[in-house]
Amino acid sequence: MAKHRALDGLFVALADPTRRAVIRRLGAGSASVGELAEPFPITLPSFVKHVRMLESTGLIRTRKSGRVRTCTLNRDRLLLVEGWLAEQRELWEQRTDRLEQFVTDQQEDQ
Amino acid sequence: MAKHRALDGLFVALADPTRRAVIRRLGAGSASVGELAEPFPITLPSFVKHVRMLESTGLIRTRKSGRVRTCTLNRDRLLLVEGWLAEQRELWEQRTDRLEQFVTDQQEDQ
Repeated sequence: MAKHRALDGLFVALADPTRRAVIRRLGAGSASVGELAEPFPITLPSFVKHVRMLESTGLIRTRKSGRVRTCTLNRDRLLLVEGWLAEQRELWEQRTDRLEQFVTDQQEDQ
Repeated sequence: MAKHRALDGLFVALADPTRRAVIRRLGAGSASVGELAEPFPITLPSFVKHVRMLESTGLIRTRKSGRVRTCTLNRDRLLLVEGWLAEQRELWEQRTDRLEQFVTDQQEDQ
């Protein structure tokens, strides 16, 4: 149940191009909120809302030192999303294996 | 841009436990809306809204035959989500490789 709620939040967080771009940028290394905000044609307060949302889902961690808040990617949360997708893939692949076996069995029976 | 919009919709569609459960169920094979709705303690009209949303993002396809609407998973759309995650993983891994190289270079310099 907790995992379900976590996945709900993670998928909502990823459903926005600005937040996905932040995740991508942080994949290359930590960055300050100011550095992260630079490429985006939105106000800093709007950008900070995206950062807070990413932080609330655990996708990023932030740490304040003086006036600078540094953001770091938390890969574990993306691994949770990857894990869900991998489970789905396993289900299809099992099904494909069963279908192949069925076709093979039919051919052998002929 | 079209890919961004597609990803936005896909992530929104996956941000719901009922819709994720439908995706999982359809991974095991096609099913009618009635069969899919059965395990859920919600009304059929509420369930049909979830089905329509999944269909609008292309995650599932539906086909009506007589009074029965059959749903099928469209794996290509989940592959788009997998692809985005794989891109992120590649970025971290490149970074980890660079960090390892840096540490190795430092050790060799000592």
